[in-house]
Amino acid sequence: MKFDFTFQNPTKIYFGRKALENLKPELKNYGKKILLAYGGGSIKKNGIYDKVVDILKQSGKEIYECNNILPNPALSKMLEGAKIVKDNNIDLILAVGGGSVIDCAKGISVSAYAEGDVFKRYWINHEELNNNVVPVASILTMVGTGSEMNGGSVISDTVNKIKADRCFPPHVFPKFSILNPEYTFTVPKYQMVSGIFDIMSHLMEQYFSGDDDNTSDYLIEGIFKSLIHSTRIAIKDPTNYEARSNIMWCSTMALNGIVCLSKEEDWEVHYIEHQLSAYTDCAHGMGLCAISIPYYHYIYKYGIDKFVRFAKEVWNVDDKGKSKDQIALEGIDCLKKFAEECSMITNIKELGATPDLIPKIANTCNLGGGYKKLNRDEILEILKQSYQ
Amino acid sequence: MKFDFTFQNPTKIYFGRKALENLKPELKNYGKKILLAYGGGSIKKNGIYDKVVDILKQSGKEIYECNNILPNPALSKMLEGAKIVKDNNIDLILAVGGGSVIDCAKGISVSAYAEGDVFKRYWINHEELNNNVVPVASILTMVGTGSEMNGGSVISDTVNKIKADRCFPPHVFPKFSILNPEYTFTVPKYQMVSGIFDIMSHLMEQYFSGDDDNTSDYLIEGIFKSLIHSTRIAIKDPTNYEARSNIMWCSTMALNGIVCLSKEEDWEVHYIEHQLSAYTDCAHGMGLCAISIPYYHYIYKYGIDKFVRFAKEVWNVDDKGKSKDQIALEGIDCLKKFAEECSMITNIKELGATPDLIPKIANTCNLGGGYKKLNRDEILEILKQSYQ
Repeated sequence: MKFDFTFQNPTKIYFGRKALENLKPELKNYGKKILLAYGGGSIKKNGIYDKVVDILKQSGKEIYECNNILPNPALSKMLEGAKIVKDNNIDLILAVGGGSVIDCAKGISVSAYAEGDVFKRYWINHEELNNNVVPVASILTMVGTGSEMNGGSVISDTVNKIKADRCFPPHVFPKFSILNPEYTFTVPKYQMVSGIFDIMSHLMEQYFSGDDDNTSDYLIEGIFKSLIHSTRIAIKDPTNYEARSNIMWCSTMALNGIVCLSKEEDWEVHYIEHQLSAYTDCAHGMGLCAISIPYYHYIYKYGIDKFVRFAKEVWNVDDKGKSKDQIALEGIDCLKKFAEECSMITNIKELGATPDLIPKIANTCNLGGGYKKLNRDEILEILKQSYQ
Repeated sequence: MKFDFTFQNPTKIYFGRKALENLKPELKNYGKKILLAYGGGSIKKNGIYDKVVDILKQSGKEIYECNNILPNPALSKMLEGAKIVKDNNIDLILAVGGGSVIDCAKGISVSAYAEGDVFKRYWINHEELNNNVVPVASILTMVGTGSEMNGGSVISDTVNKIKADRCFPPHVFPKFSILNPEYTFTVPKYQMVSGIFDIMSHLMEQYFSGDDDNTSDYLIEGIFKSLIHSTRIAIKDPTNYEARSNIMWCSTMALNGIVCLSKEEDWEVHYIEHQLSAYTDCAHGMGLCAISIPYYHYIYKYGIDKFVRFAKEVWNVDDKGKSKDQIALEGIDCLKKFAEECSMITNIKELGATPDLIPKIANTCNLGGGYKKLNRDEILEILKQSYQ
């Protein structure tokens, strides 16, 4: 509700080139059995895996593994991890990777000691969490989701083609997260810019809703401007530590629960993208980008003052002698041009969508919406716009 | 260090018209003995005292009191509270009031079980905290200091005329803070605008330092703009809930440890003001205001690009055809005009400073500084500028 909220975010952030030095002292706070959760193996190539395993061994820990957690983490993988945790009385789940790995780690945490169909209970029906959870911590290697400092967990039921999200309460948030911007230097450009649009989308989903005047909106504009500025530097110079640091921190700040305080939110772009990627397994940020442009073109007139503000405050659009529509559309155009400048994907065709999939996506996504509640026909139209 | 930090802020915030409803469930987490810390009695007049005492009694708590905690809370009062805590094995210190009361409550918390000269050890020498502390919680009735969501505690040794600050680690932060903007409706305008300049000063002390490009600077600009906007509304319409909410939240966000991340900081204005109020007992925010204007006039040329940015981003100064000096000075002038528009005090004479006190203030304040490290002669000159 407006100006009526509860906020707490207890995650401890260790940020910087030497952030990993904090792992050893932190590990003293947890028992012996550690589940190391990670992805497809990039952390083995770049040496982070070896460093982390060394520290775990020096700390006298027993290491269990749940690996090959892929983008759009699968329910089956989560349940596999949950079984390891339960069977071995794991004391800490240490996620090393990007948002998918951390999301999956939280899923493992809440599922290990849950009864019944946990996906249905917690992700579909959003039942209150009522079982023991296992502490989670993270070492972040890719930015975008903000999962390192929140309770969010997006899990895909690949059999039934449902990608569902859940935001768990603060005791499921990572206890600590280690953020070393240097770890992101080697992320391929495609993943890097996909992550950056994910951040932008988080900001816009929280910004484009409500007609109130709210400190959170000003904070979002600030993060947006910093992100644009640092992205332009990082694209030319991927090992620019300052720019990668700002992008990493923008990502965390965009979804750690602060900039949505007192605000209505939208999230329809995310709902559509979830089903787009449930059917195509596309990169999340790219899917968001391809949907956002036609989506905002369609809804802007329902919240025109905020889109005018977006154009002026975020993109410095000169408003002199222009109508509100012109200013608002110029702002959306700046967003599109920025996406193209960054080689982001603005068309769902390129992401693997096909004409027969489009109605399936439109028919299965959640209906939300900030300035405009869309019906399925409108979503279909937006998807078609993005297919051209 | 730049882009190298540790951050954690575990305080739980209950914000809104019904925020006090959360007190009763929260009290279940603490033992029976509560020290109620409050100020000069305004909470008795506006009914908050009775409401809180009712809830404490309904919860079966034993109430102890430390009252008459005045602005610029005194060391002697803090030690009096610490004795009550120790003698009675208090389980929770509940501060009801503004920053002075909360600062004092934290001081009581760390002092109750400390050995030796606690003021010297923790506030002057900044020794590491190494004794048990008692949990603190707060119910905020006046905004400005941000004490409701940080570890800051400013205590005045009134005998030796030393006002000293300390930032304690997260386990001293309020466990929970109850923020109901309606409680601030009845704060007299003098205190209200004093608190608002305190917020502005917190933002500027963190902003005017460093030449890096930093997400934190963008966040500060956002908070600043929201604060200016809502202040103008609240001055005309003090019971505007939306405006008072934004001001309250700007205050918390300005000093909860987020907007300083990765940044160098200044704090010289605060150091000078601490000694100004040690000698005059002036309202903190008014003291900051009276010092800030001549201070920034003096130091701007050492960080001119940031002052140009301040003018353009925060005050929308048009930069066309102007020199950097002109733009920077126009920004400072906007700050001064805003202070005057709000009836803030811009002259230390009005705050009780006298010609004989000025050298004493200059000679006893800490030396800090962001863009320029000042010597005592320069501080003397700035104080004289503010006396005219």
